[in-house]
Amino acid sequence: MLLFCRRDQTPADRDALLTAARAAGFHPQPMGDRIIGLFGAGRVDELSGLAGVERIAESDGTPLLATLNGHEPTIVPVGAARVGEGFTVIAGPCAVEDRQRVLDLAHRVKDAGATILRGGAFKPRTSPYSFRGLGRTGLEYLRAAGDATGLPVVTEVMDTRDVPLVAEHADMLQIGSRNMMNYSLLVEAGRAGRPVFLKRGMSATLDELLHAAEYLLLEGVPGVVLCERGIRTFSTEMRNTLDVSVVPLLRERTHLPLIVDPSHATGSSRFVPAMARAAAAAGAIGIMVEVHDDPGVALSDGPQALHPDTLRDLIRQLREISAIVNRTPAPPAT
Amino acid sequence: MLLFCRRDQTPADRDALLTAARAAGFHPQPMGDRIIGLFGAGRVDELSGLAGVERIAESDGTPLLATLNGHEPTIVPVGAARVGEGFTVIAGPCAVEDRQRVLDLAHRVKDAGATILRGGAFKPRTSPYSFRGLGRTGLEYLRAAGDATGLPVVTEVMDTRDVPLVAEHADMLQIGSRNMMNYSLLVEAGRAGRPVFLKRGMSATLDELLHAAEYLLLEGVPGVVLCERGIRTFSTEMRNTLDVSVVPLLRERTHLPLIVDPSHATGSSRFVPAMARAAAAAGAIGIMVEVHDDPGVALSDGPQALHPDTLRDLIRQLREISAIVNRTPAPPAT
Amino acid sequence: MLLFCRRDQTPADRDALLTAARAAGFHPQPMGDRIIGLFGAGRVDELSGLAGVERIAESDGTPLLATLNGHEPTIVPVGAARVGEGFTVIAGPCAVEDRQRVLDLAHRVKDAGATILRGGAFKPRTSPYSFRGLGRTGLEYLRAAGDATGLPVVTEVMDTRDVPLVAEHADMLQIGSRNMMNYSLLVEAGRAGRPVFLKRGMSATLDELLHAAEYLLLEGVPGVVLCERGIRTFSTEMRNTLDVSVVPLLRERTHLPLIVDPSHATGSSRFVPAMARAAAAAGAIGIMVEVHDDPGVALSDGPQALHPDTLRDLIRQLREISAIVNRTPAPPAT
Amino acid sequence: MLLFCRRDQTPADRDALLTAARAAGFHPQPMGDRIIGLFGAGRVDELSGLAGVERIAESDGTPLLATLNGHEPTIVPVGAARVGEGFTVIAGPCAVEDRQRVLDLAHRVKDAGATILRGGAFKPRTSPYSFRGLGRTGLEYLRAAGDATGLPVVTEVMDTRDVPLVAEHADMLQIGSRNMMNYSLLVEAGRAGRPVFLKRGMSATLDELLHAAEYLLLEGVPGVVLCERGIRTFSTEMRNTLDVSVVPLLRERTHLPLIVDPSHATGSSRFVPAMARAAAAAGAIGIMVEVHDDPGVALSDGPQALHPDTLRDLIRQLREISAIVNRTPAPPAT
Repeated sequence: MLLFCRRDQTPADRDALLTAARAAGFHPQPMGDRIIGLFGAGRVDELSGLAGVERIAESDGTPLLATLNGHEPTIVPVGAARVGEGFTVIAGPCAVEDRQRVLDLAHRVKDAGATILRGGAFKPRTSPYSFRGLGRTGLEYLRAAGDATGLPVVTEVMDTRDVPLVAEHADMLQIGSRNMMNYSLLVEAGRAGRPVFLKRGMSATLDELLHAAEYLLLEGVPGVVLCERGIRTFSTEMRNTLDVSVVPLLRERTHLPLIVDPSHATGSSRFVPAMARAAAAAGAIGIMVEVHDDPGVALSDGPQALHPDTLRDLIRQLREISAIVNRTPAPPAT
Repeated sequence: MLLFCRRDQTPADRDALLTAARAAGFHPQPMGDRIIGLFGAGRVDELSGLAGVERIAESDGTPLLATLNGHEPTIVPVGAARVGEGFTVIAGPCAVEDRQRVLDLAHRVKDAGATILRGGAFKPRTSPYSFRGLGRTGLEYLRAAGDATGLPVVTEVMDTRDVPLVAEHADMLQIGSRNMMNYSLLVEAGRAGRPVFLKRGMSATLDELLHAAEYLLLEGVPGVVLCERGIRTFSTEMRNTLDVSVVPLLRERTHLPLIVDPSHATGSSRFVPAMARAAAAAGAIGIMVEVHDDPGVALSDGPQALHPDTLRDLIRQLREISAIVNRTPAPPAT
Repeated sequence: MLLFCRRDQTPADRDALLTAARAAGFHPQPMGDRIIGLFGAGRVDELSGLAGVERIAESDGTPLLATLNGHEPTIVPVGAARVGEGFTVIAGPCAVEDRQRVLDLAHRVKDAGATILRGGAFKPRTSPYSFRGLGRTGLEYLRAAGDATGLPVVTEVMDTRDVPLVAEHADMLQIGSRNMMNYSLLVEAGRAGRPVFLKRGMSATLDELLHAAEYLLLEGVPGVVLCERGIRTFSTEMRNTLDVSVVPLLRERTHLPLIVDPSHATGSSRFVPAMARAAAAAGAIGIMVEVHDDPGVALSDGPQALHPDTLRDLIRQLREISAIVNRTPAPPAT
Repeated sequence: MLLFCRRDQTPADRDALLTAARAAGFHPQPMGDRIIGLFGAGRVDELSGLAGVERIAESDGTPLLATLNGHEPTIVPVGAARVGEGFTVIAGPCAVEDRQRVLDLAHRVKDAGATILRGGAFKPRTSPYSFRGLGRTGLEYLRAAGDATGLPVVTEVMDTRDVPLVAEHADMLQIGSRNMMNYSLLVEAGRAGRPVFLKRGMSATLDELLHAAEYLLLEGVPGVVLCERGIRTFSTEMRNTLDVSVVPLLRERTHLPLIVDPSHATGSSRFVPAMARAAAAAGAIGIMVEVHDDPGVALSDGPQALHPDTLRDLIRQLREISAIVNRTPAPPAT
């Protein structure tokens, strides 16, 4: 059971409720500011009339997410950008490597038409012997590049202890695929006052993805952007199998904006444009792509990075496709 | 080892070669008209100089398929249509149900812009208690609808014994997903003198798909059209997971035309347009879709059938997207 | 709807029923001897009172399979062997290669403890350039080896046209993984008067497997033995992923005996014993394994073949494990 | 490149090396105590002669893991237990619910034959509205139950910030499936001075699992126990598909002990015994199972919990099977 507290509940009310819940035979568990989970076989009737109680109900799916589904898709402000309005292009290097390179790349992706800058300072790597990112220094370089170009920045956070630091430097926090079910991190990121870019886990169902978003909403996150980046299937031709079908599926189930990342899905820049176009044609509101001006020397994931010139041509195609998809339906043929 | 025979080889040469191969310690196995497989630990040098021998070489991948990869993509003529030229739309009912309905639908899909008519007469069904198609009668109705509209027709064949009958009525034979590894059927279909529409198996790798095409080529098939129709993954939100990534992947590996079937991949007409657009945007040269004017009464797969009016709007979008994708690259920005 | 005919129905009754069903607005479709499928929106009440009609009911799952589930597991007689009684070991070469070798192997697997002889005469191969088996000659060699040792034989059939030939030589027909959804073949094999060894498709659900068994039962097959042989997953360490969990799952859902094939699942003889033991410990009633006395020269799948001596030791372990699993539960501890 | 430092390296040497590496054009990155990763296109020859340098080499797989592979399997001491010696049974409730229940269960699983006590205090849950565990209080109850029975305890840690707290209460730290690629957590857990129980991620390859173990070893972890707990496949009959094949596979690739968790793999106590037996028969050195004396009221995962009496019978079977598997090979038959 979930006990929903009134908005005007006082801290004293809350403490009294927790005590009462224990006395009624429950294990009470606070969830966000206004919900107390009641676990075990307790007596509900001892609680329902107490001060600060709005209602007690069975837990049911993702109630906070449901409240976002209105007449219009949700727009998520990220710095000066508005994700969900027009076609969003998040671009930049896989990893921030040095101050000058990220600054140059920021200018080039902006010129190519990107609207948000990405770049990894904390990098999750399968092998402990791979480059794990510049950390705090990387955050500083990324912030500087964002400020110089006017592009808002998004970067990954991997450790609950780093959330405040990353939130200080970035306009949006990224939760990577490997951490989509790192619930401690979701809770902490949800409290940081920044929108969160939430990547689907490699074998996560949509239900699991939406519940991860609910974790964030429960902590008061100001916005969530979902991201499909490929799933793990029997097919090993590309790094992952981009699941384009989530685009129309999620549109039915949530109003949160959905971005597609064809770089990680394919693992190869040769395939990025085709898959980016597929995403736009299916109705995705934007893409995240990795870009490098000299992929051969990139410290991480060079083979999947687009050259900035390719990005420019691609963005032009994507905006044309997106216009066809989103255009007001033609009047009936006569 | 494979023994490649000379084009001018006589039947007597061939018989002599088979005898000599046995004497040399091999299990010889004829493959198509011009190849003899040599299995076991025999003595190659006893064969290499014999009449009718072109060369003896290790088997290596899909040599016949490789010969099709030239400067231009392969065009497959199907009746009056040319698959691989322009954007191909194969449309029609899942199953042929009665003469009038398939005739009406043929007119409607033609009006909507379809270029080839589909319709099942032999239907593979998971349950033996489902409608398995009208068989020979269905073939006759389909042929009549094709003739009345001028649309070439494609229909599935499931049994080696039915290949001649189906080849007599259809312009192209379809091998369904469940039979992609039915090698007896591939051999028989490859000999029927008709192009073959080969659907990828639900868990087939690209290598397995291309080897299935090689089976057909080895028997002298006049043309092969490949089809992606969704793979089986952990995700159960749609009937299958459409693997859009095969579009750019196969373009690198073969010049055979690739069609995408969003109807079977999604199992729901709500999702067909988005996935059809994704396929076109990724570079597919056409789609196969199921259409019904009254899906609620369809004897098979009603929920995934598009209404003809929706098809018309969709085809218009697909042709626009395809034009963007295939347009000559813009001159470099100045 | 399914129309179940009475056992004493005459051919004339049946013809009259088919005519009446058409007149009532249905597409009638005979299924086996005693069921007529009624498809489309017809009028049931016009049929229910006619001669030869037992009842008309909604199709529901796998009714014939359900009738086999009694108090005891089903025993399938295969020649002199009884599958489902004791621990069954089906062993032999992947492919029948020559008369002497299969005869020698038959003696060796019998000495090792095997109860049924296997050997492929028609081999489904991913590449058309692989050895496809000796065909009719292979069947003769296998039959001779079975007769010489007294072991019943099982071998694969791939083509509807070969069913009578294979049924003449084998005590049990095998339907391979690639053909589990080849419904034409299931129908024909079901009519051949031999029990059928039905392998689960590489990505088949249990529901699909059980429906394939229902196809066989509908045609009057005298017995069905199911076989798990590995599924296709993201893991590529072994050829397939042996799904041991089907052993307890199928035991809940069907009384048909279940055999496990660790040779195809693993693709490597190094892993066969461990997976065979796992199958026995989970409760499988037997295994099918490939055996070769000189795997390095095998024409097909040598790397997964056990040596006969290894087989002997393995069978001893499996019988011990099976005894532990199937022993009457110990009396409660005091 | 990796720079391996000498054992007698001083902190001053190390600082000098980092400075020199930057000057030589690298991004240096410390990894554990004795390795410095060198990223980017620097000049190796400027570093190789410096004080404290042992050698500079390409990164190659999992070198620390490789050093554990000796003549004998690795034994991991966990409190008074020795994992890898005899057959280990880790049992207990999914979640610690209250002091008395965990104490009672500890006594019961010990009586049944278990050698280590498990119980969750921090619970990763798909829905934020599920019971997330008692946290610190749960750790205290678990520790008390371990002390009362003499059983060592293992419990999950989810947050880097909680590692010291959990390490203080538990004899072994568990990293759950959802966090197998939470590299920040691996680093922190590796430093805590406790052995780590590392569960394979739901879609992790063996390579990814072994690299996760390498992360732990790099930080000086005193022992690693691997755990297979089911993977995500197309099959949805059970919660996950237990991948029994990793048992022989991992035995070839690592000497770390491997435990199998049939409770999470199956999600149902009906299937736990069969899958536990399969694991033992495949050669697993132990199992982890969830136990509850009243599964209907469990706050988490009740349906998969075994009753203590069932556990007792199961352990007896497992020890018998394990003895058959591990027994010295029989002398050759005469």
